[in-house]
Amino acid sequence: MLRADLPTPALVVDLDALDHNIDTMSAVRPGPALRPHVKAFKSTELAGYLADRGDHRSFCCATLKECEGMIGAGLGHDLLLANETLDHQRLAGLAVAAASMGTGITVAVDSAETVEAAARAATRAPVSVLVDVNVGLPRCGCRPDDAAMIASLARTAGLEVRGVMGYEGHVVGNPDRTWRMERVEECMAQLRGAHDEVGGDVTSAGGTGTYDLHTWAAEVQAGSYLLMDTHYGELGLPFRQAVFIDATVISVSTDHYAVADCGLKSYGMDHGEPSMIGRTMFFSSDEHATFVWDDADKPAVGDRVTLIPGHVDPTVACHERMAVCRGDEVVATWAVDLRNW
Amino acid sequence: MLRADLPTPALVVDLDALDHNIDTMSAVRPGPALRPHVKAFKSTELAGYLADRGDHRSFCCATLKECEGMIGAGLGHDLLLANETLDHQRLAGLAVAAASMGTGITVAVDSAETVEAAARAATRAPVSVLVDVNVGLPRCGCRPDDAAMIASLARTAGLEVRGVMGYEGHVVGNPDRTWRMERVEECMAQLRGAHDEVGGDVTSAGGTGTYDLHTWAAEVQAGSYLLMDTHYGELGLPFRQAVFIDATVISVSTDHYAVADCGLKSYGMDHGEPSMIGRTMFFSSDEHATFVWDDADKPAVGDRVTLIPGHVDPTVACHERMAVCRGDEVVATWAVDLRNW
Repeated sequence: MLRADLPTPALVVDLDALDHNIDTMSAVRPGPALRPHVKAFKSTELAGYLADRGDHRSFCCATLKECEGMIGAGLGHDLLLANETLDHQRLAGLAVAAASMGTGITVAVDSAETVEAAARAATRAPVSVLVDVNVGLPRCGCRPDDAAMIASLARTAGLEVRGVMGYEGHVVGNPDRTWRMERVEECMAQLRGAHDEVGGDVTSAGGTGTYDLHTWAAEVQAGSYLLMDTHYGELGLPFRQAVFIDATVISVSTDHYAVADCGLKSYGMDHGEPSMIGRTMFFSSDEHATFVWDDADKPAVGDRVTLIPGHVDPTVACHERMAVCRGDEVVATWAVDLRNW
Repeated sequence: MLRADLPTPALVVDLDALDHNIDTMSAVRPGPALRPHVKAFKSTELAGYLADRGDHRSFCCATLKECEGMIGAGLGHDLLLANETLDHQRLAGLAVAAASMGTGITVAVDSAETVEAAARAATRAPVSVLVDVNVGLPRCGCRPDDAAMIASLARTAGLEVRGVMGYEGHVVGNPDRTWRMERVEECMAQLRGAHDEVGGDVTSAGGTGTYDLHTWAAEVQAGSYLLMDTHYGELGLPFRQAVFIDATVISVSTDHYAVADCGLKSYGMDHGEPSMIGRTMFFSSDEHATFVWDDADKPAVGDRVTLIPGHVDPTVACHERMAVCRGDEVVATWAVDLRNW
């Protein structure tokens, strides 16, 4: 099938760009130096492609469903739930499934309650933990000074403590590379201090915006670099835009606007409107993208337009599948099988 | 199951509030005076409940998939695709399916191209059209002056022209009821003029924000009134909030913020952050809602929190299912079976 014949709206992956992104990242952070973040693409088929081409075998996930899907797809070699959970029953199921495949499951903990959930799950099959340390982003993670206490609670509960993680999410999006580098140093000084107390082999941090700025953390958790979005596109990173939304023009007004058949249900809006290539967006409705045109470039009903999402993660989660293209040809369809919870 | 035991994040429907909303609307716009808009809830089970309780049998949809699902569920008595499409093959399939059930399909047209698509579909089974007239919202719809020409094209192509539709979407969200009423009059003057030229029995317009302000249009296309959101909640309408996102607190910082396990993948952000009942939102991440707390009301890890979405339509589309509750008890699960395209 040709890309131009896809029913719209369609989530399209440019495989040449994806290959470029995988290769660029794995040259800097080969194999276990990268822990790809599944939340950014939510597809076991994309994960399998990445494991083959990029030779990364350790993944991280944001949800239990992502973990369950990755283990089910045989991609659970070293899987980290890089998020807190209290659902000890599903965590136990995950641990049992991982153990039956000869692997293990690791989960982030930052409180007595999350340690307890991991410990309850570990009564069924081995569960390891990373102590999640807050390094400045107001989200999950214990205070650096509390990391030793959390590790002690976990070890007392019989859990293996593999090390620490800390995400400098408040830093990764700043377009000033020098500023990002300085902030990474400050954040990692906190994580390093915590790690001195916690111990373990794993030091996990970072994201797409700081993937090459980490000199201490052994592994970086990045996912957006694979498909990219307009937000990360502003940082001057060496990754290419690899995901698009293709749409069809369904209405053209003589008042210099026109409407394509994609909208709020096909892309995330938390980073604002998507960009439309070669056009200027006006506004989005549920199933409509209204854009403006000038006399030199009047669109016709039936024309195709292509959008770049502002934020890749929630955009991918809007779709059931990705149409994977080499140039103009659709060469594969990858299910977005890990969305929902 | 109790609502408090639902895995989170969960999309929860308060059935008492939904009943109130159905009853309130059907008292003002009984039966065919309302054409409920499926895009706002994307569930054939909710549509069936609405058909039974509200006695509305004519629905409208924004996508072909919504139409296909509604016909498949036996809810295609008088189905309108209130949107433009060029996909004559799927439209033909829809027409065939509708005809085999003894009903018909109607589609909005606003151009020669959309008339042609309807005409091609109509070679397989009957297709009727409404002329979609632009009454001020910069989206689909022909100019009022062009409505007669579009109707003529359609009739020449052998299509039944049932009448006109026009959506005053630029008016429905203004909190000043008098202003809304005046604008509705202006918009409907345009639609009425078009209808004088086009003819047909159907005059379709409006939405939740103007449901009781239409004195001329025979039917109103409203959907948001069923579940509601913070945006429509500001208008002082008699509808109650009926949809919520329940989440679990997974991390509490001593720095007066805490994190719940819902985020950008569980609610639309085009109307801004959702509201958290009794709390103040700080910011949203993919799977996290960070909120602030004060000393009088410190949350604990494991607490439940409840959010109200800013915009119901894209929020529902994030979910696979709705947990339908009477008070604290889950009494049904309705699949969100009409999402995607």
